[in-house]
Amino acid sequence: MHDLLVQQAGRSLQSRFGLSAADYTVLAELTRAPDDRLRMGDLAQVLGWEKSRLSHHLARMVKRGIVTREDCADDRRGAYVVVTEAGCAAMRAAAPRHVEDVRRLFLDHLTPAQTALLAEITDTVIEKIDPQ
Amino acid sequence: MHDLLVQQAGRSLQSRFGLSAADYTVLAELTRAPDDRLRMGDLAQVLGWEKSRLSHHLARMVKRGIVTREDCADDRRGAYVVVTEAGCAAMRAAAPRHVEDVRRLFLDHLTPAQTALLAEITDTVIEKIDPQ
Repeated sequence: MHDLLVQQAGRSLQSRFGLSAADYTVLAELTRAPDDRLRMGDLAQVLGWEKSRLSHHLARMVKRGIVTREDCADDRRGAYVVVTEAGCAAMRAAAPRHVEDVRRLFLDHLTPAQTALLAEITDTVIEKIDPQ
Repeated sequence: MHDLLVQQAGRSLQSRFGLSAADYTVLAELTRAPDDRLRMGDLAQVLGWEKSRLSHHLARMVKRGIVTREDCADDRRGAYVVVTEAGCAAMRAAAPRHVEDVRRLFLDHLTPAQTALLAEITDTVIEKIDPQ
């Protein structure tokens, strides 16, 4: 179910905004962070991606001008990944439509009781496997 | 919840068998197919991955000797990705432990009623968004 939802929501993002589901996830994490930026290692961590995957993916996003890298000379923990103005504009356009897609593809098919139960299940599992 | 589960199950696979969650998913799709092989395009399709991601990921799996590419001269739809003997051995070792991890991380935290309801929810959503 998760894979199908990501695939279908991704197709919708791609055809309307030229963003893949993975692009959207990366931009969502970055725009949620202070100053629209995260270090590579922290970004890999919040995404739960392998570093090699993130590095290849970011190279393609940099090429398309939606994120950029900014070195910080005084800090050895490495460069930041930063959302560009074009990346911010893409997110502002895409986010409300993506929320609509999540409703249409997923939430609209559930009864209020099912939605409540699903929230209960996810809360339980998250609490058990990662109490932080 | 999905991301956390994949992350934790992936850590377990990595530390015991040297496989990432993504490696496991690729090997699972290939070993499920006739003759342990799929064409690149079909593999991208069943995984729901972008082709560029799959291509980079497979290059790393080929280097480690768990999958290989086999050209087919008489068919223009392109090369197969095939699981090697080492890849099959890794899957035979990892699969039963992965099933245990899925129980321990996920199913064991749910009551039988919650498991039944979750199955009902996923069936409904899958049926609505992809009737095939």
